Amino acid sequence: MEPRAAADEVVEVATSPPYLVRVGPGALAHVSAACGSASGVALLVDQRVESLHGALLDAQPRLRAAPRLSLEGGEAAKTFGVLERALDFLTDAGLDRQGCVVTFGGGSLGDLGGLAASLYKRGVAVVHAPTTLLAQVDASVGGKTAINLRGGKNLAGTFHQPRAVCADTTLLATLDPDELRSGLGEVVKTAMLAGEATLARLEVLAPALGRRDAAALTELVAACVRHKARVVAQDPLERGLRRSLNLGHTFGHAIESVAGYGRVPHGVAVAVGLSLALRAAESLGLCSDPDYPGRIRALLQALGLCSSLQELRRELGQPLSGGDLLAAMAHDKKGAVGAPELVVPAAPGSVEPGVRATAEQLSSWLA
Amino acid sequence: MEPRAAADEVVEVATSPPYLVRVGPGALAHVSAACGSASGVALLVDQRVESLHGALLDAQPRLRAAPRLSLEGGEAAKTFGVLERALDFLTDAGLDRQGCVVTFGGGSLGDLGGLAASLYKRGVAVVHAPTTLLAQVDASVGGKTAINLRGGKNLAGTFHQPRAVCADTTLLATLDPDELRSGLGEVVKTAMLAGEATLARLEVLAPALGRRDAAALTELVAACVRHKARVVAQDPLERGLRRSLNLGHTFGHAIESVAGYGRVPHGVAVAVGLSLALRAAESLGLCSDPDYPGRIRALLQALGLCSSLQELRRELGQPLSGGDLLAAMAHDKKGAVGAPELVVPAAPGSVEPGVRATAEQLSSWLA
Repeated sequence: MEPRAAADEVVEVATSPPYLVRVGPGALAHVSAACGSASGVALLVDQRVESLHGALLDAQPRLRAAPRLSLEGGEAAKTFGVLERALDFLTDAGLDRQGCVVTFGGGSLGDLGGLAASLYKRGVAVVHAPTTLLAQVDASVGGKTAINLRGGKNLAGTFHQPRAVCADTTLLATLDPDELRSGLGEVVKTAMLAGEATLARLEVLAPALGRRDAAALTELVAACVRHKARVVAQDPLERGLRRSLNLGHTFGHAIESVAGYGRVPHGVAVAVGLSLALRAAESLGLCSDPDYPGRIRALLQALGLCSSLQELRRELGQPLSGGDLLAAMAHDKKGAVGAPELVVPAAPGSVEPGVRATAEQLSSWLA
Repeated sequence: MEPRAAADEVVEVATSPPYLVRVGPGALAHVSAACGSASGVALLVDQRVESLHGALLDAQPRLRAAPRLSLEGGEAAKTFGVLERALDFLTDAGLDRQGCVVTFGGGSLGDLGGLAASLYKRGVAVVHAPTTLLAQVDASVGGKTAINLRGGKNLAGTFHQPRAVCADTTLLATLDPDELRSGLGEVVKTAMLAGEATLARLEVLAPALGRRDAAALTELVAACVRHKARVVAQDPLERGLRRSLNLGHTFGHAIESVAGYGRVPHGVAVAVGLSLALRAAESLGLCSDPDYPGRIRALLQALGLCSSLQELRRELGQPLSGGDLLAAMAHDKKGAVGAPELVVPAAPGSVEPGVRATAEQLSSWLA
């Protein structure tokens, strides 16, 4: 099957109030309109993205005229120092409570900008224009904002739903190959949660995604956003169902932390986390579809992702010891201290959330 | 009329979920119970208050055993640096998402601690044990949290309702005289909003408050909390009615900012702000009770507060020029830039919110 024609797709996230996620090759042109009747607009932009695609913003008069703060993207953006800079920038820009912040960059910039918007004058609107695959399929939708603390990733943040998201898939053409892989890790996770139809479609389109086919990217990003929108609308504050989205993340965060933040792209770590979660499922007898683990490992390989912890260790040339990973997992913010909670995949579209494994079990999977 | 007997009073704040504010001489003993079924407790305490009253916390085993971070109180607490320290402390304390932060200190510490609690792991519970009159009558109730930015006071914050508030009026016996005055400024504001009954009671009890009579303090603090609880329950996110609570604050914040943060206690600035708001009401023909301005000025004097900007200038020995105050008002976060929105008092229990004055009018009131 060919990917569907690459017109924009529009997905509603039925939070209160609801908002629209526009996905496709024309999405960026809608950013100014998405700011609605804001009294003023201020832009937080990734400096690399700006040098490549700034002209697309300038084509919209309100955005061309808006005060703009260029920031380094990636984990470097998610610190107290940058948060303070962003908030001082919004003050200097004279933004009032009816103003709107626009973020133009990857997931880290969106996390930082969303947090700044949620704190500035106790909350102003934010429109995300995500520029990486990771941010388009996952980070920009759902309202989670965060910065990192000394003690761990995303430890300080808020829930602050955006006013709109404009995910322009043409921007993915210039994405760094590592960042593309990173996004594909989250695409696999989301397809596993969304169920057989999306997963099968991803298997078919994997080669097209690898060569950044615009129609394939638009179709898959929209499918991922549609799944995430359903989950977020049912559980905006992550009290239950939404925890399923952490599939692969408890392991993934530990890998990122032990390797040193920024060394392993988030979605690459999540992909290995998925393989570890599948191993947990098999080991605990929770996997109800015997073909499932092999199928996902093949998919990860087809997308150029590591399908095991061993493979990542070789690729990085780092030991990532089981003991270090176990210690990092004990600090993951999702569970009670010392007993990380796992989301375990049972079959396409089906997970077992809230599984607690013993230290012995975890050690054997992380060996 | 004598003040009523000083037993604890309990006021419900009907937010979602609702919470209780306990006011009186036995309130502090309820802090541990107020933490409920929290998986862990961590304390943020004002170092001066701790040296005076720490034993009262130690009497509760769960609080005695809890990790404790001592911080400098006042505006010094409301910076990015201290916020980061507080969040690192909560991480080191191993608090998980079911944990509870307890603040023991004045309004600034509560603002900082409430913000830290709202950000830590995207939100954990907080119990406030306010130790100043200002915090007991105002800051601890309603869920506003904040730190200051270079560009202004309280410019970064959240709405995060506490799980409970325990306002122990016996702690007010050791309050610094300036801090007592500061709290009395907010008491006058609240009485003006609450209406004739509370205002008349405040006029009767003014001398008793000045000598820190426990029963009088408990009665007035409870009356103020009762009014604030009604307003907050109707408008938790300050979209309408709650703006009335900013009576005197647009002027007051400008005074604090121009004098230099920490030079004029908040409630002392608010008291002058009330006198300026009354002047605005008279000048704009919005005052419907001709006795009202004189009555409030007499009350401010009876409580040892400045009843005019001129009086404050003399007391401080600072010019606090009209031009500087006007410029500071243009940055107040309550209104659109350049056009500060005033809450103007019309009569006891009645205000005109959202009044916009011209720069000429403002200049003449600030002369």
